[in-house]
Amino acid sequence: MENIVEKFKPLFSPRSVAFVGASNRPGKWGSIILGNLLGAGFEGRVYPVNPKEKTIQGLRAYRALADIPDRPDLAVIVVPPPAVSTVIDQCITAGVRACVVITAGFAELDEAGARLQQEMVEKARAGGLLLVGPNCNGIMSPPEKLHVAMPPVYPPPGQVAIVAQSGNVATSIARRVMKRGFGVSRFVSSGNEAVLHCEDYLAYLADDPRTRVILSYVEGFRDGRRFLEIAGAVSRKKPIVILKAGGTEAGARAAMSHTAALAGSDATFDAVCRQAGVVRARDMDDLVNMGVSFVRQPLPGGRRAGIITAGGGWGVLAADACVRAGLQVPALPPETLSELDTFLPPWWNRGNPVDLVAGLQREHLWKGLECLLRCDAVDGIILLGIMPALPIKPLPPRPSPEVIEERQADLLAAAGELFDRFMEMAHDFGKPVVVASEFPVHSPDLEIHMAARLGEREHVCYARPEDAATVLAGLAAYAENTRHPRPTPGRVLKKEAISGEAKQNVA
Amino acid sequence: MENIVEKFKPLFSPRSVAFVGASNRPGKWGSIILGNLLGAGFEGRVYPVNPKEKTIQGLRAYRALADIPDRPDLAVIVVPPPAVSTVIDQCITAGVRACVVITAGFAELDEAGARLQQEMVEKARAGGLLLVGPNCNGIMSPPEKLHVAMPPVYPPPGQVAIVAQSGNVATSIARRVMKRGFGVSRFVSSGNEAVLHCEDYLAYLADDPRTRVILSYVEGFRDGRRFLEIAGAVSRKKPIVILKAGGTEAGARAAMSHTAALAGSDATFDAVCRQAGVVRARDMDDLVNMGVSFVRQPLPGGRRAGIITAGGGWGVLAADACVRAGLQVPALPPETLSELDTFLPPWWNRGNPVDLVAGLQREHLWKGLECLLRCDAVDGIILLGIMPALPIKPLPPRPSPEVIEERQADLLAAAGELFDRFMEMAHDFGKPVVVASEFPVHSPDLEIHMAARLGEREHVCYARPEDAATVLAGLAAYAENTRHPRPTPGRVLKKEAISGEAKQNVA
Repeated sequence: MENIVEKFKPLFSPRSVAFVGASNRPGKWGSIILGNLLGAGFEGRVYPVNPKEKTIQGLRAYRALADIPDRPDLAVIVVPPPAVSTVIDQCITAGVRACVVITAGFAELDEAGARLQQEMVEKARAGGLLLVGPNCNGIMSPPEKLHVAMPPVYPPPGQVAIVAQSGNVATSIARRVMKRGFGVSRFVSSGNEAVLHCEDYLAYLADDPRTRVILSYVEGFRDGRRFLEIAGAVSRKKPIVILKAGGTEAGARAAMSHTAALAGSDATFDAVCRQAGVVRARDMDDLVNMGVSFVRQPLPGGRRAGIITAGGGWGVLAADACVRAGLQVPALPPETLSELDTFLPPWWNRGNPVDLVAGLQREHLWKGLECLLRCDAVDGIILLGIMPALPIKPLPPRPSPEVIEERQADLLAAAGELFDRFMEMAHDFGKPVVVASEFPVHSPDLEIHMAARLGEREHVCYARPEDAATVLAGLAAYAENTRHPRPTPGRVLKKEAISGEAKQNVA
Repeated sequence: MENIVEKFKPLFSPRSVAFVGASNRPGKWGSIILGNLLGAGFEGRVYPVNPKEKTIQGLRAYRALADIPDRPDLAVIVVPPPAVSTVIDQCITAGVRACVVITAGFAELDEAGARLQQEMVEKARAGGLLLVGPNCNGIMSPPEKLHVAMPPVYPPPGQVAIVAQSGNVATSIARRVMKRGFGVSRFVSSGNEAVLHCEDYLAYLADDPRTRVILSYVEGFRDGRRFLEIAGAVSRKKPIVILKAGGTEAGARAAMSHTAALAGSDATFDAVCRQAGVVRARDMDDLVNMGVSFVRQPLPGGRRAGIITAGGGWGVLAADACVRAGLQVPALPPETLSELDTFLPPWWNRGNPVDLVAGLQREHLWKGLECLLRCDAVDGIILLGIMPALPIKPLPPRPSPEVIEERQADLLAAAGELFDRFMEMAHDFGKPVVVASEFPVHSPDLEIHMAARLGEREHVCYARPEDAATVLAGLAAYAENTRHPRPTPGRVLKKEAISGEAKQNVA
């Protein structure tokens, strides 16, 4: 069998791209997407195909695929639905190995569309053609500067892969990854998944050396059993975090009309995730928050959280959120309490969360963190409030914009090293250290700059105590999966429950 | 009985402030908080009290309260715990009417602290002294430029009141309100609530003309029945949104050591909220998202959501989130579908969410919105994706920073009017229009600038489809409360369930 990375090379690392339906008319997809591809700096050859134009966006245009004096690896197809099938024939004849069908109006629309889609599927399968879509927003492969997609959003290269059954959600996820200062390895808006299904991309990404973690948005599965088998195998190699929509009756109806997906119930999908070792996210923010944590954090050996906080209320919120996320917040053993007693003031709360209380000193945070990392009763740390650890000058009352600017610069300069040290300690002790904090300077864009600065070094500072709990729970769920042998797929699920009729549980 | 607004005037609108424990030593609370008070531009008189200093931060210092040649309205107290009680005596003798006790080390610490607190309570009650704290972060009253608080965060004056049993959560809430471009009327970090309880502040804020909506963070109640009665009465006048922490066993333990609060179970608090007409938030973001919506949105007549979306996946996520938040997503009646048929392309999904599909035109969004507002089957609208409504020039591929800057400026200029029109339509039809969107330009700080620009006009653009659902559900919950007579308090609750022992349900 062909190596899967080799097989997908024409899709994610093509040497040349034919663009069927290329256009000079601004606002047309054939113009926007071709413009994005050229604008993103793709270094391979690009062949616009259009029967009526001589040149398109400065490139020589070809009347048909057959006229191109080359065998393009990839074809992008934006022609109307009834014409797609013929273009597929031409692709196969021309030796094209992969195509992205942007065009909508297939199974998601009506019976006639479903027939057109079926025809496309049969031809692509017979011709061994990798086919993305139809009804999709495109693909991106930032390490290759390949941007075959609608949205004007250009993620930098990175280790986070995105596979989504919705173009706008795919883009929302990419934006969130970028806001965290991280980059993207591969981006797929998989649309109707007529030929290539979500699990096919997962199988490729498992072996793709550019990808460290896979984020996915799904509305439903064509073949739930196959998803379960493949995702189970992939998640032994790399973490998969999934946001699943359509779990309510109203959501399932919307999914049906959106991508013709049979959504299945929330409870069923929870079982699928547990069995396949997939981490489940509740929304797009959770998806990205959990996803980026896998890039750098060590995996915890269990679900027991040690919380250390510079503020009492944040500690209470984190403790609640841990329990709700399926973590434990154990009492600390006497030896850990005694160790903390040696440097914390006598009125410290002697509990978990460890409340560092007001007036604390810089080294208390480091010592406290080390105590918790050393504590056998704790598998991972949630650290709330980095302010005490920051070596910046105090703010004067009502600081001027110049002072704020100066402190912000100090803060940004200090933050990278601070998080380097957190991660060093995390890896020394083999326990994740998940940090959520606000900052001692109040400046509206500080968070954004901080995220970018930290993301460059693959660090994250979360905004809420709840986010830290969600992330630690995600790390713990994946860690369990890598430790324990799983039952063979299919044991807990009846076939129709995940791939059959859309009998929904309303949440 | 004295008018409650008059009664609280010495606290939130004092003409003069005595600062007992004022200090010249940087880093001491008596220095930081006094500095903040002076830096914030308070226009009343300020009297530092310190037995050892002649001047403090440029002001003449007094040896004792009795030496001040004035009757200060408010005293701020930062002296050590054993000295507080004596200062309270002096306050009463000097005719001080309100005080803020920042000092910690009372009931949250140990038995001895609890006794000191009890002594303080008895003296304050006997002397008719309003007392905030102890163990608190202070108060702010931005319309009066009064900033008696630790954090260097200066919210502008506005209509959102914040009452929190945690100083750091209070500050986190204030930061979030500011990030939305809104301002604050009153800010209270209520600490141990030895004398003034959460519900006392609510009672005041109900009549405070500066306050439009009340956001509160609570860990527990001293007297659950009293809270229920007062909150029930207040919520007939103004919306109260509450984030309740300590609902899990681990959270309750943390709350006990933080503010000596008996937290009570989540289920009990849900019942309290329903009965008192209080809107419950799940986290700090939800709290502020829901809170600011009350400033401008009309209240819905029911729980039926109409969703209109520029992207399919966002629509599915919103439909799921609506159902989970207790809203319905009804099918649209034939006449509404027919009306939408007249301008949407033939392949539109004919469902709710109304998916405006790719390639849509600007007026489709406005016409679609009007159709849903006119539709009798719908009580409130969720509008996802404002991009089609924006009259900005298309982006070139891989836009330069200058082009992004220019488009961002156009976008910011257009957004205020866009939201003005949304709100105009909302009020014309008496149905809320809750908007969540991303923006056609990808620029890291656009969201922050957009929030500030919209907030100036009391508009909000939410970041996630789920946020829009949460907000619409919050508006609906409050609307039900204002419409229906509620049963008399205490019917559904046994006394010990909300004020007695901390028997927790672990979620």
